[in-house]
Amino acid sequence: METISENACFGGTQGVYTHASEACACDMTFGLFQPAEARDGPVPLLWFLSGLTCTHENAMTKAGAQSWAAEQGIALVFPDTSPRGEGVASDDAYDLGQGAGFYVNATQDPWKPHFQMWDYVTEELPALLGENFALDMERQAITGHSMGGHGALTIAMSLPGRFRSVSAFAPIVHPTASDWGRKQFTAYLGEDEAAWAAHDATLLMRERGFDGPVLIDTGTNDQFIDLLKPESFAEAVSARRQQATLRLQPGYDHSYFFISTFMEEHVAFHADALYA
Amino acid sequence: METISENACFGGTQGVYTHASEACACDMTFGLFQPAEARDGPVPLLWFLSGLTCTHENAMTKAGAQSWAAEQGIALVFPDTSPRGEGVASDDAYDLGQGAGFYVNATQDPWKPHFQMWDYVTEELPALLGENFALDMERQAITGHSMGGHGALTIAMSLPGRFRSVSAFAPIVHPTASDWGRKQFTAYLGEDEAAWAAHDATLLMRERGFDGPVLIDTGTNDQFIDLLKPESFAEAVSARRQQATLRLQPGYDHSYFFISTFMEEHVAFHADALYA
Repeated sequence: METISENACFGGTQGVYTHASEACACDMTFGLFQPAEARDGPVPLLWFLSGLTCTHENAMTKAGAQSWAAEQGIALVFPDTSPRGEGVASDDAYDLGQGAGFYVNATQDPWKPHFQMWDYVTEELPALLGENFALDMERQAITGHSMGGHGALTIAMSLPGRFRSVSAFAPIVHPTASDWGRKQFTAYLGEDEAAWAAHDATLLMRERGFDGPVLIDTGTNDQFIDLLKPESFAEAVSARRQQATLRLQPGYDHSYFFISTFMEEHVAFHADALYA
Repeated sequence: METISENACFGGTQGVYTHASEACACDMTFGLFQPAEARDGPVPLLWFLSGLTCTHENAMTKAGAQSWAAEQGIALVFPDTSPRGEGVASDDAYDLGQGAGFYVNATQDPWKPHFQMWDYVTEELPALLGENFALDMERQAITGHSMGGHGALTIAMSLPGRFRSVSAFAPIVHPTASDWGRKQFTAYLGEDEAAWAAHDATLLMRERGFDGPVLIDTGTNDQFIDLLKPESFAEAVSARRQQATLRLQPGYDHSYFFISTFMEEHVAFHADALYA
């Protein structure tokens, strides 16, 4: 693992690190914010999974999360959204290939050799973080934006006991029924829709739910709201009697101005669960 | 004036606007955050002048200022750092020409036709803002980063009564004695150093001071600290018995991670003066 940069930030350290990923068969870069408390021992960890076109950097510089994480003594990890590099397949579309990993393990070519983001985010990166930093891996929570909200919800529901709480900003919650999903799942997972169900938050909510609190914010003026389908998830949450807070925020859109506005409440929500 | 974008943000609106600038003889773009209170009437205004290479966008997306400005009911304006466009002179160096206006009126060619940032920031843009938005132009404060800290300090001291308070993050405070200053002043203002003195915060502090509170933060690990010369300004502040708080922040560097860490305190500092 190589340190790209470390900057003092809210009393702690905002670092950027690169490592050779076995899962993705390429170098992967991530951001990690460690609060001051990490100098004295392991601290809880909140994952932030980013949306389409993002790298590790967008949320790290624009979401304003470090302020609140520092206040709560929580670390933040910002993974990249896909494998990258010269040998890695991509596509001219912004929503397929590099920058658009969708947090799945691709089974189809040309994606299969590198696009193993599920394994990367659920296995390889957690192991690397636990070995190299003062993080209490027994106290993890997860959030994300858009495609990353999809990742946070599907991962949290698929790994019971791993995360104490899950939240999301404007998540894609029903990708098997959306143009943000069907195209990518066809490419990465193949034509057989049976393989897609494991990566659809609405279907997972119907089947399994989440053993902990759920918080979702979506803006009423989100320009992509028809692709996100919050109504599908809301119906599934209610039908399951899942402990959850689903909020439609008046006037907000899909941008980081929306995310940063509600970040304080999301971090506080996770802190409640992490310190319970 | 044309609206480029408006996003809901912390209960208010983060806008980006473009207008044909007379001072700079080109189109100029700025960001303006209006808190919710601006819907009911004029609110105080805090200026944020940015540093080398920045546009209106950097601080608007990375400094985390809207959160605290919303809490205090204060508007924020983020001007660009130079004229821009095809017909505008520039230089291959990052610290001269476009992105590096240094908040002066150029008297030398090829800069003179467009590089009139002093007039733009002190006259044209304030007039435009006062006419088009619910801003109380009797209650203004100013801050900035690096080159923008230089701008904030020199403008505040040169226009007594305009600003109630001035602060800066890692400002260039003695440009007439620094490679961040001598090169640019030679290019924009000519060889005669007499013309430079009006744009040097340390010299202005010795001559005039500021009729209000001053707050400066600089990181002890700032990679550019030898160019900033905080010791010169500190000496001038002390010699003048200027009301001021000058802080060296242990471990912090020149980045937006440093700025965002101390933004809450700077906004609160200005709010104290604006609501006094």
